Amino acid sequence: MHIPHIRNTADAALSAALDAAINNKTKPLGSLGMLETLAMQIGLIQKSTEPRIDRPAILVFAGDHGVTAENVSPFPQSVTWQMVENFMAQGAAINVFARQNGCALHVIDAGVNHDFGFRDGLIDRKVGYGTRNFAVEPAMSEDECMAALRHGLALAATLQGNVVGFGEMGIGNTSAAAALMHKLTGIPVSECVGAGAGLSGEGIAHKRQVIEQAVARHKEVTSPLDVLATFGGFEIAMMAGAMLGAAERRMVLLIDGFIVTSALLVAARLQPAILDYCVFSHCSNERGHRHMLEHLGGRPVLQLGLRLGEGSGCALALPLLHASVNFLREMATFASAQVSTADK
Amino acid sequence: MHIPHIRNTADAALSAALDAAINNKTKPLGSLGMLETLAMQIGLIQKSTEPRIDRPAILVFAGDHGVTAENVSPFPQSVTWQMVENFMAQGAAINVFARQNGCALHVIDAGVNHDFGFRDGLIDRKVGYGTRNFAVEPAMSEDECMAALRHGLALAATLQGNVVGFGEMGIGNTSAAAALMHKLTGIPVSECVGAGAGLSGEGIAHKRQVIEQAVARHKEVTSPLDVLATFGGFEIAMMAGAMLGAAERRMVLLIDGFIVTSALLVAARLQPAILDYCVFSHCSNERGHRHMLEHLGGRPVLQLGLRLGEGSGCALALPLLHASVNFLREMATFASAQVSTADK
Repeated sequence: MHIPHIRNTADAALSAALDAAINNKTKPLGSLGMLETLAMQIGLIQKSTEPRIDRPAILVFAGDHGVTAENVSPFPQSVTWQMVENFMAQGAAINVFARQNGCALHVIDAGVNHDFGFRDGLIDRKVGYGTRNFAVEPAMSEDECMAALRHGLALAATLQGNVVGFGEMGIGNTSAAAALMHKLTGIPVSECVGAGAGLSGEGIAHKRQVIEQAVARHKEVTSPLDVLATFGGFEIAMMAGAMLGAAERRMVLLIDGFIVTSALLVAARLQPAILDYCVFSHCSNERGHRHMLEHLGGRPVLQLGLRLGEGSGCALALPLLHASVNFLREMATFASAQVSTADK
Repeated sequence: MHIPHIRNTADAALSAALDAAINNKTKPLGSLGMLETLAMQIGLIQKSTEPRIDRPAILVFAGDHGVTAENVSPFPQSVTWQMVENFMAQGAAINVFARQNGCALHVIDAGVNHDFGFRDGLIDRKVGYGTRNFAVEPAMSEDECMAALRHGLALAATLQGNVVGFGEMGIGNTSAAAALMHKLTGIPVSECVGAGAGLSGEGIAHKRQVIEQAVARHKEVTSPLDVLATFGGFEIAMMAGAMLGAAERRMVLLIDGFIVTSALLVAARLQPAILDYCVFSHCSNERGHRHMLEHLGGRPVLQLGLRLGEGSGCALALPLLHASVNFLREMATFASAQVSTADK
């Protein structure tokens, strides 16, 4: 399949122009901290000294995981489809936060083990009824993995706005993400495995053992796409595709927590320049996420101790993205407001 | 003068009811992190399991400082009144952020060294044309300090909503705040002094020396109100009064950065239970702020490297306050959404 080529956003002249615009605003130099960094980044992505947030959307990808047969989650697999129903009924956290912050929400069935039938408010891109159990065999065939990536790429092409957040739902998917993380970063499994939706210490130890054995079983797998097919999930592969498609279209990519970042690990191995388009919305409380962010050199916008998924961190960080472009467009300059500048 | 008695918000029965309401929502236990802490706190303040944010407002208090004669800021004193003009013209950062997040903004002349005349959009509570230079003599007389506190108390009584943020503008006021911090916490001056609006290393060393000498000069001053009068400012004293008045009315107090927190240090020494009402919107990049927060046991909502003042952190944190009460009121429960719960 064709993987889009992602260009980096470097532009020395625009960078200097943005720097000047930011520094001429009526505030002490550098005093808006990370908002200034975001204004610069979004300006470079949009090739503009007056960047704007236009029709932001969050895509929530749902999929099931065969590895749940190994008892790696405190919740039964049926919670995946039940939560998809909850999304459609507007009852989940992501519904509340997206609605509050004026963000469209699109829910995609990437591969849930359930027949929803045709439903308003659910985008059917089902690749299968859950993946296979990677403790025993590869989670996806190469064809399935490619189908999921292609669906993701195509979905990105349907977006109208210039900011897209990524979210997911899938019981068992912190196990898939932990295996991806280990394979793609080399960080020991013990540092990649966490409580997920709420495992006890004993449960975490068991999950770690399951993943260590699976990694040993598939130790010959090394290329990013093979790793994705072997350990990933339909929702993770579809997200990786959508990320590549969105970056190709020069959108801002809002990255959520542990599982979404594992999809980005794959996309960034394929196209490293994708990182120029990524805003890391938060640092999750799921154990491995901080290490993932460090590995990617990503600085999180929020640190609220979230570990919910669904794209909730993206929706919560969105007002700060608005603030970063709004100060740049709307604040007065020292000259326009006739405010004296600092002594040099 | 009469200092209001602030009651703590402890309520075991309500606490248990809020805990149950938070934990029954369709999400892993504890997975909304700090938003759950905020929902609990705001519920206790409002004595409700269905707390709401109603008509939030930010009060920006402006005042000048005699200590600017000691060359402790890179900006001239005239920037205080020029920035007040900028607030009225909607050109400052706080205007942009308050507008974006649906927050009313009230600008108060607490003691700027400038005649504004009668102006729409400026609340005149001028106690004087700037304080005296605390390197030489007390910044305020006891009467002036009391007048500022009383004005603050009265202003709090005019607020219609249930959330109030505090902001300030005053060239030289990080020097006043650093002196207050040292006197009220015992933390060495060197840990209390920072770059303010952008001092160089040399400038910071000079500022430190000015404050150390002033503290030595006024070493007999120990009571919180005497410390406030000696080293504080009209805007700091008025904020402390407004904080006490707002907490008495059981409002949520949104605390901004270094200077606002120095006003809270005074208020909390007078009425320690005021801390139950405080949400610390962010941890500033101004050196002493982290120590102040630790001293007060306050956990900041945002960590964006801001050091702007004006209440900008309050305006930026407001959407997260909305999110904390919205998830509690609007999310489905496991029972209402028919989602299976975790294994026990």
